[in-house]
Amino acid sequence: MENNERMLKQLEFLLELDKLKNLYRQTYIYRDDLPTGSAEFEGNFKERKPLPRKENDAEHSFSLAIAAVVLAEYSNEPVDVLKVMKMVLVHDAVEIDAGDTYCYDEEGAKTKRQRELKAADRIFGLLPDDQQAEYRSLWDEFEECVTPEAKFAHSMDRIQPLLLNYTREGISWKEHGVHFEQVEKRCSKIKDGSDDLWDHFHNLLENAKNRGILPE
Amino acid sequence: MENNERMLKQLEFLLELDKLKNLYRQTYIYRDDLPTGSAEFEGNFKERKPLPRKENDAEHSFSLAIAAVVLAEYSNEPVDVLKVMKMVLVHDAVEIDAGDTYCYDEEGAKTKRQRELKAADRIFGLLPDDQQAEYRSLWDEFEECVTPEAKFAHSMDRIQPLLLNYTREGISWKEHGVHFEQVEKRCSKIKDGSDDLWDHFHNLLENAKNRGILPE
Repeated sequence: MENNERMLKQLEFLLELDKLKNLYRQTYIYRDDLPTGSAEFEGNFKERKPLPRKENDAEHSFSLAIAAVVLAEYSNEPVDVLKVMKMVLVHDAVEIDAGDTYCYDEEGAKTKRQRELKAADRIFGLLPDDQQAEYRSLWDEFEECVTPEAKFAHSMDRIQPLLLNYTREGISWKEHGVHFEQVEKRCSKIKDGSDDLWDHFHNLLENAKNRGILPE
Repeated sequence: MENNERMLKQLEFLLELDKLKNLYRQTYIYRDDLPTGSAEFEGNFKERKPLPRKENDAEHSFSLAIAAVVLAEYSNEPVDVLKVMKMVLVHDAVEIDAGDTYCYDEEGAKTKRQRELKAADRIFGLLPDDQQAEYRSLWDEFEECVTPEAKFAHSMDRIQPLLLNYTREGISWKEHGVHFEQVEKRCSKIKDGSDDLWDHFHNLLENAKNRGILPE
């Protein structure tokens, strides 16, 4: 009976995380490349076929988790890959209550921490005590970004939208009018987790600037 | 330079997996509960707000990965959780080429294996040789369903849509006219990975039958 109570709490937590599937980010997914307004786009829209669309937090977290295992060899320091994966899977859970604050939104950033702490209390609080402690501590560790696992998790969190944006000709950058220096500054965090990945993605950013898809 | 070639292959593989975000399954996500045809539904549709919708393979895989860590304690045999997570993250990759075969589609089932083997060759073949061998072998292991990790991964793959379907009043079961015995037979695989989870989910199925949301 106690066992069942424990399981019910865990399933409740998993259902709660399902809400990440309704939280849309600013990044467009890779393969939905019909131009808005085209006949094909409008046709698809009417028939409810897949449309050019942004990705949600669940999809983003999926991409980070698989990236973390495939790219683990590039971490500056040895990492516990399982820990990195757990971290990236729950790193955006707080957005269920706190919403997604676009990374270049300075107004939103002011209240972000407060909103997210409250959300962490509620959402990780759905779990049984031992797991609540574990996942809350993983989230805190991610936020503090000091350990090798947290640094590498942040590298994943930066390269994933960068890769998608680059393959989509900088569409989100354009939509939000962000500039090379802003993206470069934000993405320099990649280096804390992986010099090798930073080398590659810094080149990619320079390339985006030179091609004019990321204005100076 | 060699290092860079290796990284490019890995990034290509990650971009390929992004296509899982466009592959829709038969299961509806948890929180999109506007009735089709309602004024609110139509309003949301016009304004492109979230709609009642099915989940895609990336979202499904995200849910399995987090379920695997949170519920690992219920595995019948001790499992390497990292291995289970890798397995569930790539278990549907073959659907990028082979498509999703609905689990109660008997016609599609006949050619499924052939289509999926071909897809596995191409998609895991994008990776560098060592990783190609690792991920292909993880996928084969999942398909064979003999090891403790593969059995537990299959348990996750069964309970996740079951849980969503149950919370959505059996909507996919109704759409496809499936019956209790079919679902019970398919889901009995949960037991191979976890007696505890099967106890719970078998009760849930009985409950669904008694409430009339899953016809006898």
